[in-house]
Amino acid sequence: MMEIPKLLINLKAYKESSGERALEIAKQAEKAWRETGIVIGVVPHIIDLKNVAAQVEVPVYAQHVDPMDAGARTGHIPPVLVKLAGASGSIINHSERQVGLHHISEVISLLRELDLSSVVCAPTPREAAAVSALNPDAVAIEPPELIGTGIPVSKARPDVIVDTLKAVVDVNPDVDLLCGAGITSSEDVRAAIKLGSYGVLVASAVAKSPDPYRKIRELVEPFVEITRA
Amino acid sequence: MMEIPKLLINLKAYKESSGERALEIAKQAEKAWRETGIVIGVVPHIIDLKNVAAQVEVPVYAQHVDPMDAGARTGHIPPVLVKLAGASGSIINHSERQVGLHHISEVISLLRELDLSSVVCAPTPREAAAVSALNPDAVAIEPPELIGTGIPVSKARPDVIVDTLKAVVDVNPDVDLLCGAGITSSEDVRAAIKLGSYGVLVASAVAKSPDPYRKIRELVEPFVEITRA
Amino acid sequence: MMEIPKLLINLKAYKESSGERALEIAKQAEKAWRETGIVIGVVPHIIDLKNVAAQVEVPVYAQHVDPMDAGARTGHIPPVLVKLAGASGSIINHSERQVGLHHISEVISLLRELDLSSVVCAPTPREAAAVSALNPDAVAIEPPELIGTGIPVSKARPDVIVDTLKAVVDVNPDVDLLCGAGITSSEDVRAAIKLGSYGVLVASAVAKSPDPYRKIRELVEPFVEITRA
Amino acid sequence: MMEIPKLLINLKAYKESSGERALEIAKQAEKAWRETGIVIGVVPHIIDLKNVAAQVEVPVYAQHVDPMDAGARTGHIPPVLVKLAGASGSIINHSERQVGLHHISEVISLLRELDLSSVVCAPTPREAAAVSALNPDAVAIEPPELIGTGIPVSKARPDVIVDTLKAVVDVNPDVDLLCGAGITSSEDVRAAIKLGSYGVLVASAVAKSPDPYRKIRELVEPFVEITRA
Repeated sequence: MMEIPKLLINLKAYKESSGERALEIAKQAEKAWRETGIVIGVVPHIIDLKNVAAQVEVPVYAQHVDPMDAGARTGHIPPVLVKLAGASGSIINHSERQVGLHHISEVISLLRELDLSSVVCAPTPREAAAVSALNPDAVAIEPPELIGTGIPVSKARPDVIVDTLKAVVDVNPDVDLLCGAGITSSEDVRAAIKLGSYGVLVASAVAKSPDPYRKIRELVEPFVEITRA
Repeated sequence: MMEIPKLLINLKAYKESSGERALEIAKQAEKAWRETGIVIGVVPHIIDLKNVAAQVEVPVYAQHVDPMDAGARTGHIPPVLVKLAGASGSIINHSERQVGLHHISEVISLLRELDLSSVVCAPTPREAAAVSALNPDAVAIEPPELIGTGIPVSKARPDVIVDTLKAVVDVNPDVDLLCGAGITSSEDVRAAIKLGSYGVLVASAVAKSPDPYRKIRELVEPFVEITRA
Repeated sequence: MMEIPKLLINLKAYKESSGERALEIAKQAEKAWRETGIVIGVVPHIIDLKNVAAQVEVPVYAQHVDPMDAGARTGHIPPVLVKLAGASGSIINHSERQVGLHHISEVISLLRELDLSSVVCAPTPREAAAVSALNPDAVAIEPPELIGTGIPVSKARPDVIVDTLKAVVDVNPDVDLLCGAGITSSEDVRAAIKLGSYGVLVASAVAKSPDPYRKIRELVEPFVEITRA
Repeated sequence: MMEIPKLLINLKAYKESSGERALEIAKQAEKAWRETGIVIGVVPHIIDLKNVAAQVEVPVYAQHVDPMDAGARTGHIPPVLVKLAGASGSIINHSERQVGLHHISEVISLLRELDLSSVVCAPTPREAAAVSALNPDAVAIEPPELIGTGIPVSKARPDVIVDTLKAVVDVNPDVDLLCGAGITSSEDVRAAIKLGSYGVLVASAVAKSPDPYRKIRELVEPFVEITRA
């Protein structure tokens, strides 16, 4: 399994980051990775996943998968098809696409069998701890009230990150903690790292940026600093 | 908050255990409780909940509640209405009525604020551990493949109970463990207790019994033995 | 099957209209019915359904039912249990509890087999026409943007009622049309009748009224006038 | 808007018809279309949709779309992204991916605004009539008990097709009727046409065929015969 990205870029279902633009952002993530050595992942819309995965070497994640094998499953997304399309993992239970507890558990198992990574989103420290018990590769804490606001969780709610980290480590120390919601600058990322985050999950900051490459470089800079230190 | 029942009797949506029969079973549970001192809870259909709760002193639980306050919520079940109807708690995430992770988390909080108990069902040790992190009062482990079979989890899959107990204790030692699925005799209950269960969750064994009182007495007998010992 | 109520009072999950208060409102509806001869139905919360149905002779409806028979269905509401509790029918697909097309279709059939009435809610003329094809007893048109506003659909959006009536009659002339959303006065009811509505569906106007009896009498008055005319 | 395909080939989430194989089948459909003039549509998995749509001239449909615009909608499929990927339309409410009545209604409107076709699936004549009132371009009747059986609806349940056609025409004569479930041979297609179907919806017969081109040619042959006659 590939290393979990330090910077995971969710392109959501934005028009601005779909189609050719999804590929372009992924290419720029790849360039930043080559320059810095920091693993950067891209989470394109499922429509773009295959095309993006075919053309970049950075990890490409799905935004959602369903707990099932391939087969007569019209309109569903079995993890194995995501694997065959070149993905390295999947986000699970994003606040915009919440699923049942059993769904999360099943999907983590299916992804692991396929050697794909699982990043499960949770809105609170308690739910982050809960999903950690399901043994995913990473948990992304995203207080929903901050998603898309530009108010960085790492500065507005440092307690949430600290509590989550403590709760997650208690339950399962093998799980990496990503922190999301409102992260838009290197300063936000630095604050997240200082609080103990393994990495960050971002969306509009990159997806809607007029200069995604520059924004990506800015956001990975704090990880580069750590490596150097 | 009341003590979690050692024997929790789910009447499901069986015709055989609804209406007058729900009340009758609850009365017999009450009688068995008075005689033995072992706390026995009844989980009638929501239609019968109020009538049953008004007429017995044993704890009465809802089968499902929704994560919301009272209000313009046609067709939903806010915990506060269940409280006003006299309930002592609610089952959450039964395998026949699965809900999202966030639903579980919200409902546990709402129930606690109302001084109502929460018993969260989980089909696997891993999911039992996950829901334990949400700090419910109890977790009920029920392997779905055994529900309604009459094959007792405590004898067919002792490993599931042992693994669940270990996983739950690791995450949250304050959570009581109930064990369900296929429990129909005092022997099954004894096996469950020996493996470390706090109590048992049963359904058809009592709900469809020709002599519910006798079946209840049989099922609580192992708890009486412990108390005596 | 009983006649569809001209005035159907949805008590939702309001605290103000649950428990003893649900019964009180139903009693007042019964009184108004005895005085006027206009059929008035009450839709209490499922927790109160049985108690209310046992004590009044006006039709009592459920707010929601599930497409299934009685059985091992923890947390679900089979129509047959609603029938055994004394209900005369059920609302289906209320905007606060939307369900799938197949759910609607199955529930209408199950209710009919049990000699229970079905009132299916729809937010637009087109969806009202669609559900009419499933052959329910009545369709209630409720533009969601007006629900709970006190702005009466019959005055703010007469076109919606007219279009719905036309669409419904085209598809299935046997279906009664109720009109809901924002109905709070006899004037609103009169406007609804003038536009061709069979009856009205109300909620907070009665459920939260300081004097439900008086409000009910006001709302049925236009139907009395028609009968006299 | 493009003409609704006479033969619509659902590739579901089969491994056998995903990736390169999806493209191959689409190419063979295109070849058969060029040779016969009969419009043939392909419904690849969403992962393959873009790649397939970019490389063939026959209509390509999505298997499912969500009722929403592009935006912060992680894990969802807005119709506009499907349009930008080159699709001509979408299946809605397939029996393997059922959705709410309001979902169907909203999606039909969104697709129409984008000049995309809508093919709504329904399991019974009554539900087919219901969705016809929502004014889709086509309705596909698929008795779920026959899906994937190889028992052709057109021969096993001709009454279902006849009843559906009658019900649909009554409600909305502009809607094309496709018939699905168990269609595997030209004989089945011929029976469907004779009963009044506009076209057919197939899946495994083509998707799992050792020789998809030959199977496609066989299935369109009855439409060619009509054209000639």
